[in-house]
Amino acid sequence: MYTIGIDLGGTNIVSSVVDDKYNIVASSKTPTNAIRSAEEIFDDIAKVTKEAVEKAGIEMSDIDSIGLGTPGTVNGDGIIEFANNLGFNNVPAKDMLVERLGVEKVFIENDANCAALGEAYAGVGNGAKDFVAVTLGTGVGSGVIVDGKIVNGVNFAGGECGHMVIMVDGEECTCGRKGCWEAYASATALIRQTKKAMEENPDSVMHQLAKEEGKVSGRTAFDAMRKGDIAGVKVVDKYIKYVSCGLINLVNALQPEIICIGGGICNEGETLMKPLRRYVQAERYSIHSKIQTRIVKAELGNDAGVIGAAILGKVK
Amino acid sequence: MYTIGIDLGGTNIVSSVVDDKYNIVASSKTPTNAIRSAEEIFDDIAKVTKEAVEKAGIEMSDIDSIGLGTPGTVNGDGIIEFANNLGFNNVPAKDMLVERLGVEKVFIENDANCAALGEAYAGVGNGAKDFVAVTLGTGVGSGVIVDGKIVNGVNFAGGECGHMVIMVDGEECTCGRKGCWEAYASATALIRQTKKAMEENPDSVMHQLAKEEGKVSGRTAFDAMRKGDIAGVKVVDKYIKYVSCGLINLVNALQPEIICIGGGICNEGETLMKPLRRYVQAERYSIHSKIQTRIVKAELGNDAGVIGAAILGKVK
Repeated sequence: MYTIGIDLGGTNIVSSVVDDKYNIVASSKTPTNAIRSAEEIFDDIAKVTKEAVEKAGIEMSDIDSIGLGTPGTVNGDGIIEFANNLGFNNVPAKDMLVERLGVEKVFIENDANCAALGEAYAGVGNGAKDFVAVTLGTGVGSGVIVDGKIVNGVNFAGGECGHMVIMVDGEECTCGRKGCWEAYASATALIRQTKKAMEENPDSVMHQLAKEEGKVSGRTAFDAMRKGDIAGVKVVDKYIKYVSCGLINLVNALQPEIICIGGGICNEGETLMKPLRRYVQAERYSIHSKIQTRIVKAELGNDAGVIGAAILGKVK
Repeated sequence: MYTIGIDLGGTNIVSSVVDDKYNIVASSKTPTNAIRSAEEIFDDIAKVTKEAVEKAGIEMSDIDSIGLGTPGTVNGDGIIEFANNLGFNNVPAKDMLVERLGVEKVFIENDANCAALGEAYAGVGNGAKDFVAVTLGTGVGSGVIVDGKIVNGVNFAGGECGHMVIMVDGEECTCGRKGCWEAYASATALIRQTKKAMEENPDSVMHQLAKEEGKVSGRTAFDAMRKGDIAGVKVVDKYIKYVSCGLINLVNALQPEIICIGGGICNEGETLMKPLRRYVQAERYSIHSKIQTRIVKAELGNDAGVIGAAILGKVK
């Protein structure tokens, strides 16, 4: 039996047929062309899904369930209540898919939660029941899985761990609070921290690196560190300390089997992961426990979302 | 059918027969007299349990399951791995109860988690499936319930939300980290904050109040506030802001149906709860959601532990 996972993004719509070992069998995609009407977007979702099924050499009747991951807030009735970058307000996504594709078992979920589910079941989690996925990108995204299920909370807005304050009255966050983890641990925050250090250190090699790249990026301080630049070393160490602070908070609250880290910053690999693990190891509350949360790098990349969406039918 | 809940505390052992509506039918108690051997303590646990059953006018064969709440870390085999104030190391609590009482269904759990379960099912939670209990006492204790089950995590050390940092490099915490929520929101922290404000404000009425009470307590600043003392008002406002910071973090991560607050500070009632709710309302991430986490005062008091222990058999 097969399932279908759909990743409805701000840029592209991807639909994939996934087998019962969580392998992607066939995919099709098309630009989202947001913002346009939900009717048009769902017509295209149906179109690429039928294409994916055809590419897989199967029939729609071979499909057990369909899952769709979307930005924004999705309620328990499969309605996308609000998705800013799609211009969606109360779009009955589930009903629109059932109508267009004739499959009864349809599940709609937030995209970060789908990605977490994908990594937990089919990726680095290898079936872990208690799992947190954290993405260090423009913001700090997260999805929390407890006992094999996504923690949606009472209003389906759960899992926003990036908006847990780690510094009372600290840096302003896009959410309106001050001092959120996201305001210290996102790639955006790292770039801000790098720029500040460059101002304070006019002789740092970071200036030259930024000139070569044409901008200050999430790599600038890491690259400077690799060249032995003291200011770069300090930026990286402080950034990793901020990232670890939120991770340790999650460990102490939930003691998941695994926390996986994704997002562009993860391309630093063990340069990031090793000191992160060291900080978590030193400060976690459960210092005497034999079993500890493992901190690992995400492995499914962009596929996590579609695979997670395809799994929704098995865990909802 | 009846169940038994046992609260094994550092001071007393309480055993209660609980009916299927979560009412305590009969109880018996004895001093713990810690530290002594686990054998002796479990003999006394069996004794008070048999007494409670007799008081209830029933037989041990009317008991469906037994739950025991204990300080420390309990693993999935019902072994108390470590409980500092009982002097316990790897005590096979489950087996020791089965042997002494002849009831097969026996469950052992951390006491804070039992209290959370009691409030969630039988107290202010009224059956809420997603629930967090926070206790503002010497420390900040907590128990997290997701989908009706205690979040134990991979090593049974989960739910230590008091040890989530809200201030990077902040006040030292007993756990070894700096800036934990507990170091700002416990009664101990409030007393420290009060003493600091008294030093800085020699004319504050707090000096007179502390003299009358014979000590600086968690009430000093609240009482001063009620007398219109500006320094007292500032201490209370800042303290409530710290408490709310951790609560909002929990809301953003888990969006539980209810967060209940217990512990001595709660005797302040709405003086505490109203501004707490105001802060949470203003800063939560889910500002557009129709349904919001309710912040309420715990209602079972000391009974939460035994009732929660008695419920273990229904949720494990």
